[in-house]
Amino acid sequence: MDMQWFLDRDPFARMLGIRLIEAGPGYAKTAMDIADNLKNGAGIAHGGAVFTLADLAFAVASNSHGKLSLAVAAAISYVKAGTGGTLYAEAKEVSLGARMGTYAIAITNDAGEAVAAFQGTVYRKDTPYTRETA
Amino acid sequence: MDMQWFLDRDPFARMLGIRLIEAGPGYAKTAMDIADNLKNGAGIAHGGAVFTLADLAFAVASNSHGKLSLAVAAAISYVKAGTGGTLYAEAKEVSLGARMGTYAIAITNDAGEAVAAFQGTVYRKDTPYTRETA
Amino acid sequence: MDMQWFLDRDPFARMLGIRLIEAGPGYAKTAMDIADNLKNGAGIAHGGAVFTLADLAFAVASNSHGKLSLAVAAAISYVKAGTGGTLYAEAKEVSLGARMGTYAIAITNDAGEAVAAFQGTVYRKDTPYTRETA
Amino acid sequence: MDMQWFLDRDPFARMLGIRLIEAGPGYAKTAMDIADNLKNGAGIAHGGAVFTLADLAFAVASNSHGKLSLAVAAAISYVKAGTGGTLYAEAKEVSLGARMGTYAIAITNDAGEAVAAFQGTVYRKDTPYTRETA
Repeated sequence: MDMQWFLDRDPFARMLGIRLIEAGPGYAKTAMDIADNLKNGAGIAHGGAVFTLADLAFAVASNSHGKLSLAVAAAISYVKAGTGGTLYAEAKEVSLGARMGTYAIAITNDAGEAVAAFQGTVYRKDTPYTRETA
Repeated sequence: MDMQWFLDRDPFARMLGIRLIEAGPGYAKTAMDIADNLKNGAGIAHGGAVFTLADLAFAVASNSHGKLSLAVAAAISYVKAGTGGTLYAEAKEVSLGARMGTYAIAITNDAGEAVAAFQGTVYRKDTPYTRETA
Repeated sequence: MDMQWFLDRDPFARMLGIRLIEAGPGYAKTAMDIADNLKNGAGIAHGGAVFTLADLAFAVASNSHGKLSLAVAAAISYVKAGTGGTLYAEAKEVSLGARMGTYAIAITNDAGEAVAAFQGTVYRKDTPYTRETA
Repeated sequence: MDMQWFLDRDPFARMLGIRLIEAGPGYAKTAMDIADNLKNGAGIAHGGAVFTLADLAFAVASNSHGKLSLAVAAAISYVKAGTGGTLYAEAKEVSLGARMGTYAIAITNDAGEAVAAFQGTVYRKDTPYTRETA
């Protein structure tokens, strides 16, 4: 499923170098290299950058159904510092209702180890949101 | 209390143009202008940028006690779209223990309206973390 | 503002001995004695009981506007063990929109110390929900 | 793996009728019938009861390694009302570190539909916590 248009329209994702690896109905996988400008003062991948990587997978997955979906709440647990290489975020749909959708996003490193876990809920507006309407 | 060194060491915060307005023991306030490259495809302040603004206030507040403090969990609720102007994040200490610290961060816009609410917990390492040791 | 009817209709709150102390538009304060059957195996107030105390303050505050409001997401941070006496939860409205409402709830003990922090979001249905309609 | 002793020591879990279905290293599954006294005023499974069901799976899974593990943060998303029958919570370990552990818990109904999603982090104390020491 082609959702590349979604990332193309997102300047913040581009600034962080976030790439879309795969997308499907209620599903998305994103990737981000831990460049030096994505680190914090302790020299590890910034919590805000890791959150944003997961947020993009969350956004693509939740907007894959063609209705504008906006995050209302998200929670992240950081379990391992990202020190280098590439991080991946994979979003799966927990539930899709008429108005709300909930997603679980796993963030991993090159070795497949868990780096963070993210859980988020969107509010689904009536506004169509597709490549053509966006 | 001078915590500007903390932001100076954080390249990701600099890339987003996040500024430190005020800091004290267990307290911090940050600001960020909603530049075009901090927006998402819907034309509003990116959830990842709003999170990062709050995360920086959280990080400065929790590291103000001189021990390296790393986020273990955070939750954010988005309540209003940020469409322009400047956003502010103000972190207050809910509790400080030997190993853990918890903070509540309010994110507001120029009009003083709530934009998001953030709650986070850090693990406090024994490593000293000050302007001299960082 | 009289919201006692809300707790009267909630059998689970009654089973835990949760009391409503005060209520107003977008505001509520609840209390719960740490009885022995509200403890966990470590002998401290059960995380589920502390959550429920906060959840009731959240529910009363969000339903105080007369529309049925259902929790969609909540996050809790535990900062101090509750070992005895009474716990209190005070809910304040962060934001109220047409469809969503967000609340911050502070949980404290008899000494006024923070025990937990809770943040929650409701979806507001069109269904009226008042003493008369409930 | 026999963790029944863990629930036997938890009076709050017993009051709610929560049962342990299965346990293993970093894993647990619990069940709870939606009795009338576990409902809220809207007639559906109480958010606090659903949280507690998940919390018990989280607690058994995180304490399965023999060290006393206390919740520091948890987030729950409610996706479907529980109206009757039995609810299940299945906890899986996302990550286990020396001091922290993170778990994802899926809450489902009799039909296997998602009812809620829960994500939680524990702090692992040095205190041994087993059937013999508890």
